[in-house]
Amino acid sequence: MIHAPHPALLPNGLNDGLPPRAEREADVVDGLMAFVRGHGYRRVKPPLIEFEDGLLAGAGAALARDTFRVMDPVSQRMMGVRPDFTVQIGRIATTRLRHDPRPLRLCYAGQVLRVRGTQLRPERQFTQVGAELIGADTPAAEAEIVVLAAEALEAEGVVNATIDLNLPTLLGVLCEAHAAPEALREALRVPVDHKDVASVQDAARSLPDLGAALVALIQATGPAREALAEIAALGLPPAAAERVAALHQLVDHIEAAHPGLTLTVDALESRGFEYYTGFGFSIFARGARGELARGGRYIAGPEGRGQPATGFTLMMDAVLDAMPEAPLPRRVLAPVGHDRGAAARLRRDGWTVLQALEADIDLTAEARRLDCGFVLGADGPEALT
Amino acid sequence: MIHAPHPALLPNGLNDGLPPRAEREADVVDGLMAFVRGHGYRRVKPPLIEFEDGLLAGAGAALARDTFRVMDPVSQRMMGVRPDFTVQIGRIATTRLRHDPRPLRLCYAGQVLRVRGTQLRPERQFTQVGAELIGADTPAAEAEIVVLAAEALEAEGVVNATIDLNLPTLLGVLCEAHAAPEALREALRVPVDHKDVASVQDAARSLPDLGAALVALIQATGPAREALAEIAALGLPPAAAERVAALHQLVDHIEAAHPGLTLTVDALESRGFEYYTGFGFSIFARGARGELARGGRYIAGPEGRGQPATGFTLMMDAVLDAMPEAPLPRRVLAPVGHDRGAAARLRRDGWTVLQALEADIDLTAEARRLDCGFVLGADGPEALT
Repeated sequence: MIHAPHPALLPNGLNDGLPPRAEREADVVDGLMAFVRGHGYRRVKPPLIEFEDGLLAGAGAALARDTFRVMDPVSQRMMGVRPDFTVQIGRIATTRLRHDPRPLRLCYAGQVLRVRGTQLRPERQFTQVGAELIGADTPAAEAEIVVLAAEALEAEGVVNATIDLNLPTLLGVLCEAHAAPEALREALRVPVDHKDVASVQDAARSLPDLGAALVALIQATGPAREALAEIAALGLPPAAAERVAALHQLVDHIEAAHPGLTLTVDALESRGFEYYTGFGFSIFARGARGELARGGRYIAGPEGRGQPATGFTLMMDAVLDAMPEAPLPRRVLAPVGHDRGAAARLRRDGWTVLQALEADIDLTAEARRLDCGFVLGADGPEALT
Repeated sequence: MIHAPHPALLPNGLNDGLPPRAEREADVVDGLMAFVRGHGYRRVKPPLIEFEDGLLAGAGAALARDTFRVMDPVSQRMMGVRPDFTVQIGRIATTRLRHDPRPLRLCYAGQVLRVRGTQLRPERQFTQVGAELIGADTPAAEAEIVVLAAEALEAEGVVNATIDLNLPTLLGVLCEAHAAPEALREALRVPVDHKDVASVQDAARSLPDLGAALVALIQATGPAREALAEIAALGLPPAAAERVAALHQLVDHIEAAHPGLTLTVDALESRGFEYYTGFGFSIFARGARGELARGGRYIAGPEGRGQPATGFTLMMDAVLDAMPEAPLPRRVLAPVGHDRGAAARLRRDGWTVLQALEADIDLTAEARRLDCGFVLGADGPEALT
């Protein structure tokens, strides 16, 4: 006899959000979106699924293997469930909203699905909140996005966050400046990602200057000002030095806008930043697995009509892990026939007011059973003793 | 040469939500959820996809043909994208939350997908907001749900809503009472749904009493009190009369809780209510295609451990169509180097404050270009003249 699986069983990496965490997530998403909208970012809401050739075009190709696909019986074409919002926002910005004035500020919140989880994040459904600034390429535009991400988290109660800045294309730029063959560049990727100094030196033994620069960059990580000063002293080739100088300018803009932020630089960091063409950044905080936010400079929109853009995405599971607990609303049980106007006023003041469904009950016992700390009396809520 | 489709093209029935409608939808969802949570309904967040045998079990089978399916490469089992929340909420209530005290009040908001749209609603993705009261089967419990749906809409500004009550199982009960063969019952379904009196009489000519009762019920639709009085005078068989008496009791409870509501009865209405085992209801309002809300009494959870439940689902596209326009927030452009504290205070007061990204610009012209009605001066926002 074959037993049906237990109905509570969900696929790996897919979970039921339960109270109070599901409520907390919704409240924090609301707070973050209100903050971002207050800065002029207009909310858009792309569909959960769309044709895969749009969803996976250009920069979206990086997530092709992570995307659930379904056949559209109407058009007989393949559709994908979005693994990320950024490609969709780029599509909207460069098509539906192509005539809107630049810079275009857009924001979003919603669910994304991935075919497979990662070791760090086994989940396959994520709540993402993000903002994109499209059609501007100055350090001021880039700084607006970094500071907005940091301040939005701060406004929701995340403390002691660290913003780690990087240059995902720097390895490529250095390899080109040193005329490194493609094979060497490929061979360097993993040891550089793992900060494996010995392997970097070994792989680059035919170009010892390149090897030395990479090792120095790996070692020059830490607080932004110090790291950038160290890197400036390395005498990198002009194309690389230019990238570093731009990052320095960005740090200046960020510090001018919000002096107290903790900035670090890890110039060669590029894992998960394949999408980005300029700087990249992550935000970390104590208590959270992995990063709370990721963002940077990229090209929005399909190839051929792309526009410079900077954006960030907040990963809500990590954000919640870094948040202080929220107090639960006070719950009060109102008897049958209670003053409905008084109950409505209490709710507007933030109380949760449940109504009893039966008249002949011990109201206090029922309140206790339903996890209420109060019953509604003639003069208002009365705490259970 | 084959041209690639235009990248703006989305699959039929799937749309980009743009400002201001996407913002309005998010705000109204927030308002509705806050209202429902104020009544003690705790938010849950089931995953977008889960194993299809859970999603389509029991009452969920009615939506099997509307459900997108994807193969889970991890478990090698089929999963479905939810076409509705109710089955998921029932699963959570009877598994994860089976030990929580009853009545269990749960609510949700999110996206659902359907393989095909309908003529009335070509869309295939919907935003749904809903509440479920599980483990209570009294008229007081049923009335709580109907009144909650109506008051939540009212609180968000929907005026002149009509609540239409029905008994989706009444045709079956009458057929049974008249010992109608299964084939006759099948033959009656469509003419009854279309209120086609001649065809009903024709189909039921072998059981003229049944035909006469159905015709009388079709004609007894309208304001709840009048319709129920007419129906009470029909002398229906006891099993049917009992259902009608329960509906009468429900109307009494609804009117006691919220006197001003407009209630109508269309007893035999059952299209789209296949799920419900007790009464059903729809809420309509001027300006909206189709119903704003649908709900009723059903069995929550998988077969064998089902629990009596009453719930409603709000269809956000129809809700928005019935809503008054919301005023847009005032937008102010702040120059480079503005007082960031002052900008933050304005945002907390509901202003949208954009920051200019360049210093050497005509701020007023730039504000106009960016659709701002104000620039930020030393003493606060200054209206453009």
